[in-house]
Amino acid sequence: MDKGLAQFGDSLLNFAYSFAVTRSTGTPRGFKVQDKVLAEAAVKAGLRKLLPRRVSRGEVANSIEALLGHSWLEKLLTLDEVVACLSDDSYLIPSENFARLAEMALARLKA
Amino acid sequence: MDKGLAQFGDSLLNFAYSFAVTRSTGTPRGFKVQDKVLAEAAVKAGLRKLLPRRVSRGEVANSIEALLGHSWLEKLLTLDEVVACLSDDSYLIPSENFARLAEMALARLKA
Repeated sequence: MDKGLAQFGDSLLNFAYSFAVTRSTGTPRGFKVQDKVLAEAAVKAGLRKLLPRRVSRGEVANSIEALLGHSWLEKLLTLDEVVACLSDDSYLIPSENFARLAEMALARLKA
Repeated sequence: MDKGLAQFGDSLLNFAYSFAVTRSTGTPRGFKVQDKVLAEAAVKAGLRKLLPRRVSRGEVANSIEALLGHSWLEKLLTLDEVVACLSDDSYLIPSENFARLAEMALARLKA
């Protein structure tokens, strides 16, 4: 796991999620996406089972941050796509949207 | 001071600065821009003197985050411009770059 890539992905996801909620609600806000939400998304997207059994929730969250950070840096996903996906109505259950984003990134990495 | 707007600006600046450093160095990294850096930039850009004398460093930092968050949401600045400005060689003294960004935003707000 590339820690720096996960940290970069973290900054991308915090910004994209903050913008998605700001735009959807019309009220500017900033968020730090919680590891709990990202770890749930990693399970839903099938990413968790690619990792060793004994890793912490923080490390599971890092895996999805690194995946999405890498995909964005490699231009497999645009910022508009990330924001659009996180703006889906189910942003009230954000792990659903992060999971869909991870699935999209995995599909494009394999393509 | 709009707290939500400052938080949104915070997520924008953390991401833009992380991307600027990642691109400049070729090594993905994520940063949380420190209040100290932003408060210094607010002084350099002349923003500090628009605020009451007795405000904390955190509140001075919030003022530049809110200014830049607002300018980006109002499309007075693009993400590319923010990243380009923060990618300047002086990113080793990041408060210089944040100050130039704030000056650019102030000039466009007044225009």
